[in-house]
Formats: sequence, structure tokens, C-alpha cells
Amino acid sequence: MRFAKRTDLIKSSDTRDLLNVIGFEEMISFAGGLPNAEGFPYEALKEAAISVFENYGYSALQYGPTEGVRELRSLIGERLTQRFGQDITVDNILITSGGQQALDILGKVFLDENDAIFMEEPTYFSAINVFKAYYPIIKGLETDDEGVKTPILASQLEKRPDAKFCYYIPDYQNPSGKTWSEKRKRAVLDIHRAYQVPIIEDCPYSELAFDQVIQPSFYELSGGKDVVHIGSFSKTFCPGFRLGYILAEKAVIKKCVLMKQSMDLHTSSFSQMMLLEYMRAYGLDTNIEKVKSLYMHKRDMMIKALEKYLPNAKYTLPKGGMFLWVDLGTNNDGLPYDSRLIYEKALKSGVAFVAGDAFYIDSRQSSGLRLNYTNTSDELIDIGILRIAKLLD
Amino acid sequence: MRFAKRTDLIKSSDTRDLLNVIGFEEMISFAGGLPNAEGFPYEALKEAAISVFENYGYSALQYGPTEGVRELRSLIGERLTQRFGQDITVDNILITSGGQQALDILGKVFLDENDAIFMEEPTYFSAINVFKAYYPIIKGLETDDEGVKTPILASQLEKRPDAKFCYYIPDYQNPSGKTWSEKRKRAVLDIHRAYQVPIIEDCPYSELAFDQVIQPSFYELSGGKDVVHIGSFSKTFCPGFRLGYILAEKAVIKKCVLMKQSMDLHTSSFSQMMLLEYMRAYGLDTNIEKVKSLYMHKRDMMIKALEKYLPNAKYTLPKGGMFLWVDLGTNNDGLPYDSRLIYEKALKSGVAFVAGDAFYIDSRQSSGLRLNYTNTSDELIDIGILRIAKLLD
Repeated sequence: MRFAKRTDLIKSSDTRDLLNVIGFEEMISFAGGLPNAEGFPYEALKEAAISVFENYGYSALQYGPTEGVRELRSLIGERLTQRFGQDITVDNILITSGGQQALDILGKVFLDENDAIFMEEPTYFSAINVFKAYYPIIKGLETDDEGVKTPILASQLEKRPDAKFCYYIPDYQNPSGKTWSEKRKRAVLDIHRAYQVPIIEDCPYSELAFDQVIQPSFYELSGGKDVVHIGSFSKTFCPGFRLGYILAEKAVIKKCVLMKQSMDLHTSSFSQMMLLEYMRAYGLDTNIEKVKSLYMHKRDMMIKALEKYLPNAKYTLPKGGMFLWVDLGTNNDGLPYDSRLIYEKALKSGVAFVAGDAFYIDSRQSSGLRLNYTNTSDELIDIGILRIAKLLD
Repeated sequence: MRFAKRTDLIKSSDTRDLLNVIGFEEMISFAGGLPNAEGFPYEALKEAAISVFENYGYSALQYGPTEGVRELRSLIGERLTQRFGQDITVDNILITSGGQQALDILGKVFLDENDAIFMEEPTYFSAINVFKAYYPIIKGLETDDEGVKTPILASQLEKRPDAKFCYYIPDYQNPSGKTWSEKRKRAVLDIHRAYQVPIIEDCPYSELAFDQVIQPSFYELSGGKDVVHIGSFSKTFCPGFRLGYILAEKAVIKKCVLMKQSMDLHTSSFSQMMLLEYMRAYGLDTNIEKVKSLYMHKRDMMIKALEKYLPNAKYTLPKGGMFLWVDLGTNNDGLPYDSRLIYEKALKSGVAFVAGDAFYIDSRQSSGLRLNYTNTSDELIDIGILRIAKLLD
């Protein structure tokens, strides 16, 4: 058989592959983006499952509309209306099978071969992959601590005003753990307005704000114009149901619905109704508070271990979310570490992370590594960081 | 915003759009492919939901491997090993978010722009759409009552031996309700072998065999070589969980897993475990028997109504599945009916079906219409066919 070219372009995700490995007892994994199961509202979901049968009966088991369960879209719309201070209706919302599917839908809606797109770098590994499947020309945008550098953005859009979109993860970024400043967001938005290039903002972690300050989204700052916002329930609820959404102008949602129709008809009715019943009974906020305090504690544990064992490394201090980024800098010979080589050794020493090259469009060598702090016990966080430190000796 | 070309190529599905309309009380819909909810094992699923929490705990709510839940793949493998009489392991199986996603995955795995593919005609509407998204050149293959016509297939593959695949729905075909003969399957397989062009067979209805004879699949007849088999649990279990699978050679499954990773990470863990618990407790066969006897009765009701009200029309007598095809032939002026025009009138008269043009790659005019008989009460089947008959007067 002969396969499409994209099957050679796209690489398997280290972290997904590791899901097949982490059964291995000795392995301490900072690699995945796994939420901590302690944050799952287990007992409430057991009740929700029974309510789904009682309140929705057969319709929870039947085909449903591609757009998603109307009552759920309506509830999400109300929540976003409150958060963003603007009127968001069911027509602005498409329920997706997780945030990952939202990316695939948007790739299908926007991209033809050789279309230009931009992504801040480093960026979410599986976003690079999902877009690559549509053969665009992808360029990276350099970032500092406040977000994408505006002079670079302006000069790039000047060269490619036909770009289909720029992709950003503004809050508690994956992989860096950084958060864009509001000032930078506004400056970036001005440049986008000037060139009329849309923004796709991916916000799975935005509500996990440890300092209780939810950052203003591009959607909010732009009044929803030329911004597509991706939300996920994998981090605020549970990933196992595969639930996310696209928030956008009605015309964009219409195109997205058309694509999703042929992709999977619709997202699981039962999954959607589980979330609906849970939101109706409890809202999402109580659980989010629980998750935040758990993750903030985990972040502190990891920072403590880094201070102890890797005093010479640079690392970010995430104000929310699930990841931090360690830059190992240079080795004793003054050469930058290659975190890919350290990764190979690390696996053998029983500790896993994602090597920084995975987050660059051209897989360039990186002295950085992404550490997930949410799903490891306090004790193993300490031991895991020690194991990494020992590899550098 | 500027969208990809495919957003203009792909049309919305009449039947999906109708899901937004069939709330309309007066409407009798033969349009959708909705399973009858009476066939859903409601009480057993209520129990299964509780077992999922008890037996799998947090892992039902957590991320899972892209390939699918291993125990479920193993159980499906055992079932297929028995059915096909050949050794099928977990490595041959990828769990998908319904059969529809299987089509999208295969489109991604196989298709680049201008690649040639063939589809029997008429064919599944949403298969045309999902493949079109990858810009192949799609040619139709003419069929008779036994399947694709072999001389046509041979001459087409002679012209395009580089074709990426041919797509067939051999059993209780959607939309025609026809079933390929085994003899034809073998002849078609020989031609495919000669040209080394793979077959994708889509078999969502294959187990709904009213005569208790499950047809031998291409996968079975070929020993699994160069055949990709798509299965679905939407018709044998419930569609609301969005569960299907791809069965293929390991090398193909590997490519499919790579693509699915970036499409939605994996299918809902909870959905998969609902099916797993149900299969462990009851198997699938008891429910399939119930569904078959219900659907056979419905088919008989529709045939009776057709005999009564449309004695001059030609229609298929499906031996399984969910659909039959009515060819209205010519009107009083000797001109072929255009079922699209009748469809528009039908909606106003409170009856829906899918106009035949939807099932042709070039949307050509058709005097045929697809009728779904599974999800309408006996009384309304009679009234609905009467309404259609009246439109022809």
C-alpha cells in the first residue's frame, strides 16, 4: 500500500507513546499532560451517570446534532458570556471531541497546501502535527516573557498578509508555562487588525489561574472579531470524556460544523450529557478551585526540587496550568545541552520528560525540557528531579 | 477570514440537518440512519455505567492510549477471530470515534491531492464528503444487484493502477439496501490482487443479517491482505457513545494511530469502558438478535406500504441493515422523476427521505430515494409512504 506524504511528515508524540510505557513501575513521568485524578469529581460523576439515564433516557444513547447538545452549548454560552462580558450564544459554540479535535477542525476549515500560518515558538507539539497534515507553510514566531515579539510579528505579517492564521497559547503556555501580558496581547491584536489575519487562541489551561486572576482572552479583547477561541474540559473536568469547544463568529462555526459532520458526525451524546448533568448540579467552579490548589502545591514541590538539585538551571514559574520549562543551559564544556540526548538517558534512569526539540516546528536542538508537575506524588517529584540532575553530572 | 477550498466542495448532509428539524411533530422521517431506540439495552447500560466506576475507577475519566482500551481491543479481536476464522490480535485493531472517524483517518492516511480513488455508486453520502476533504480524484463504479460490475472495475484499474483504494459497502448497502454476492466479491478481489489496489470495506450493518447468514467480508476472503475493514458499534450497540474500529494489517494500523493521535488523541475512555462492561456481562449477540427481529418487522411494514401505495415503483428488498431504495421510474410524461424536487415537496407534506442525488459523486439527478425503515412506528410507516405516493399524483 502507498500512503499519503503526511504520514512521513507527522511524528508520533513522545508523551502519547509514553502512555504505553508508564505502566512501568519504576518510571517517574513528568512527560505527559495528565491531569491529576485526585482532581476528578469521582463521586459526583457516579451520580451524574445515573441522572443522565433518568433525565435524558434514550437520547443519551442516540445520535445527536453535529453542533453538540443544545442545553450544554447554552450553559457554556452563559458561562462564557459572564467571563468575557459579551453576548455569547449557542450559535457561537461547537462542541468538539476534546481540544485536539478543535485543532483538526480548524486545520480543515482554514488550510490548503502552501497556505502560510504562524505559531509562537516553542508551541504545543500536537498542534504542529495536526496542522502539518494539511501541508501549510508553518513559520515560528519568537517569544519573550510577555508573549510573541511584536516587531517580529509585524515584519512576518507584512511579508505574508495572506497568512491564514496565527496560533497562540496565551495562558500558562504549553510547553513554557509562561503567560502573555495583557499589554502584549493588545499590541499583538493591533497588528492582527492591521493585517486582518485571524488569531486562533488555544486556552485549555486559562481557568487554572493560581493567583485567581483569569487573563483576558484575545476573544474578549477583540470583541470576538477575527478570533477563534478553543476551550477544553480536559483540565477543568475530566479528559476521559473527550470534550472541548470552539468559540467563534457564527460564520466560522458554520464552516466548522460542516467539517465536523464528515469527521465524526458529532461528539459522544453520553459524554456531553455527563458534563451537562455535572454542571447543572455543581457548576464547574468548585472543582476548578480544588484542581488549582492541588496543582499550585505540585508546582511548589517541583520548584523546591529544582532549587535543591538544579540550582544552575533556569526555569519558569508558571502562574497556572500544568507545565514548567527548564533550560539546562550549557554543560561544563560551555556547549548547550541537547535535551534529546538527556531524554534518552533519562528513560533508562527511570525518569521521563519531553525534550524541548519536540516543541519547535523544525525540531531544532534545544537545551530546554518540559516538565509536567500535576500528576506525580510529592515524594516522586523530588526523586525525579534528582534523577535528572544526576544525568547532568 | 478566508477558508480552505474544501469548505465549498463539501455539502451539508440532508439527514444531519434534519436532526435539527425532526423535532417538528408532524414530520415522518425516513431520512436519517437512526437506529431504533427500542434496540438499545437501556437497563443493562445503566448497570454498566455503575460497573465502569467500580471496575475501572479513575482510569475511565483519564486520558488513554490512542489505540483504544486494550481489553476492549482484545475482546473485539476475539470476536473477529471467531467470525473471520483467522487470527486477529490487538495490533490489528484501532478503536475510532464511530465508523465516520474511521473514514476520516483513512482519508488522512492514504490521500494526497489528485490521488485516484474509486467508490461504488450510489454510495454513502458522508464517505464522499470525508474523502473530498483531501482533494482526491473520485470516480464512481457502476453496480448491479451483485456488486460492482467487474469489467468496469478492471478497465478502471487498468487506467489507474496507481489508485489509492476502492471503497465498498458490501452488505445491506447504504443507500441501496443491496448485498454483494460472494461470487462477485471473489471476482472483485481477484482484480484488486492483479492491480494491487487496496480495498476499504465499510461494514456497519454486516451483523444485522435478517436471514442469520453473515456475509463473508473482503477481509475474510483476502486473509486480511490489502483490505481495510471498518466496523461500527452504532448499529449493534448504541450510536451515542461514538464507537467504531479499523481492522487492518499492523503496518496500516500503525499509520492510522499516528494520524488519530493528532485528530482527537483517543476515543472517550468512558465510552469504551461502557461497551467493554456491556460486552463482558452480556456479549453483543443477544442485543443484535433483538435489533434484527425489530428491523426485519419494520422492513416488512415498509414493503407492505410500498406494495399498497406505490405499486409501480421498483424497490430493493434488503436482507439486513436499515435502508431500502425506491426507484420512482418515470412520470406520466415518460420522463424520469427527479427525487430532489419531490424531496422539497415532501418536506412540506410532512415526510422526509434522502433524495438519490446525494449518493452520487457528481450529485447527478436521480429517480431514486433512500428510505430508512428502522426508526418509525408501524402506523407512521404506512402514513409516510402514502404521503410520498400522493406527491407523485
